[in-house]
Amino acid sequence: MNSPPSFPGVQVLAFDVFGTVVDWHTGIAREVQALRPEVDGGEFALAWRAGYQPAMRRVMSGELGWTLIDDLHRLILDGLLEQFDLGNLTESQKQHLNKAWHRLDPWPDVVAGLARLKKHHTICTLSNGNIGLLTNMAKRAGLPWDCVLSAEVFRAYKPDPATYLGVAKVFGLKPAQVMLVAAHQDDLAAARACGLQTAYIERPAEFGAARPKDVSSDPANTWHAKDLLDLAGQLGC
Amino acid sequence: MNSPPSFPGVQVLAFDVFGTVVDWHTGIAREVQALRPEVDGGEFALAWRAGYQPAMRRVMSGELGWTLIDDLHRLILDGLLEQFDLGNLTESQKQHLNKAWHRLDPWPDVVAGLARLKKHHTICTLSNGNIGLLTNMAKRAGLPWDCVLSAEVFRAYKPDPATYLGVAKVFGLKPAQVMLVAAHQDDLAAARACGLQTAYIERPAEFGAARPKDVSSDPANTWHAKDLLDLAGQLGC
Repeated sequence: MNSPPSFPGVQVLAFDVFGTVVDWHTGIAREVQALRPEVDGGEFALAWRAGYQPAMRRVMSGELGWTLIDDLHRLILDGLLEQFDLGNLTESQKQHLNKAWHRLDPWPDVVAGLARLKKHHTICTLSNGNIGLLTNMAKRAGLPWDCVLSAEVFRAYKPDPATYLGVAKVFGLKPAQVMLVAAHQDDLAAARACGLQTAYIERPAEFGAARPKDVSSDPANTWHAKDLLDLAGQLGC
Repeated sequence: MNSPPSFPGVQVLAFDVFGTVVDWHTGIAREVQALRPEVDGGEFALAWRAGYQPAMRRVMSGELGWTLIDDLHRLILDGLLEQFDLGNLTESQKQHLNKAWHRLDPWPDVVAGLARLKKHHTICTLSNGNIGLLTNMAKRAGLPWDCVLSAEVFRAYKPDPATYLGVAKVFGLKPAQVMLVAAHQDDLAAARACGLQTAYIERPAEFGAARPKDVSSDPANTWHAKDLLDLAGQLGC
């Protein structure tokens, strides 16, 4: 399953964040229930997250100008308030809830796994989240990124090739010297099409423990790992 | 000299890098002499650095398209080779020398000072250096940035207001909640004109011990500190 990389010499590991590094489902559910205990937090988290791709498509199609994910999250949230009986939240409560994406907890293996991977590689984010969100999250959660790269730097969201190739360009590397680490096969496939190496991370509980996700391996990826500690072990870190 | 800040509540400290955080004069002199011991390393460092502002002006005037500092450094270097009798360096030696800017050492107070400042603030770079350069430098020198911001993110060089205001925008803050920390009064004046708070750091040996720099205080700055440990002390970190 884990053959040696076809292009050895990966220097930069670029990480997808939502789902791969942090557990958005648990975090969002917890935060909405702290405000309104009667809301089904898991359903609310799924609904909010489900609005993410369609909102980014509105930007990519030109219907909306360039928009930070913080602002897209707010657009989606405003569209969900009535459905989840949250219409009577104050503006300050809505702003606080919208920033819940800055306060997500990492999966249990992440901090130790990143520390090991960082010893042998440059580790950075490659997320559609904005720089401020990712930086606040990292500071709260202790994520030791060497740098925070984001759609905001490249003015394009994943899976636009400008994002994956942008990481290689930032570091003056060939695409094959960069590896995307993600829990989503579509993200990895897009990175692979740009020449990056890829590592799939199993996150079976991404959508909640009650909805286990298919974490089958795809032999097209360079690596397949249970979590970041497993990846560090496989890479000899 | 150090009055309390007129706008308390600074959340983000944005650092100028070349001269403020790292000692470019000593580092560049050392690297060129490692290749050619007969070169006056200090004079070479001053000449290379002196080409920096004119090169950025060529980009800002539109004469050159958007150019990373790595590439501007190379342009300037190529123009100095003959003068310093470096014309017979191999291409690989020139590339290595050009990356000397990635390998500069921090001033002795920096790593400990940043660690203290980071406990109470988000700390980031705000440099005209490119992201890859700043990330490689931080990894080698152990600079614990929360994130790496650069002219490359804003597609504008300091002193363009887009850079100073860009930091505030990235974090969703008012300009007065951001403080620029720099060893250069012109950089600080431009930040102040955008509403940022400012801290001047004395680096009398920036241009070499033989050419002490005027480090007089300017009362227009919010703070004036000998070094980053002094700044941390004054800010109560």
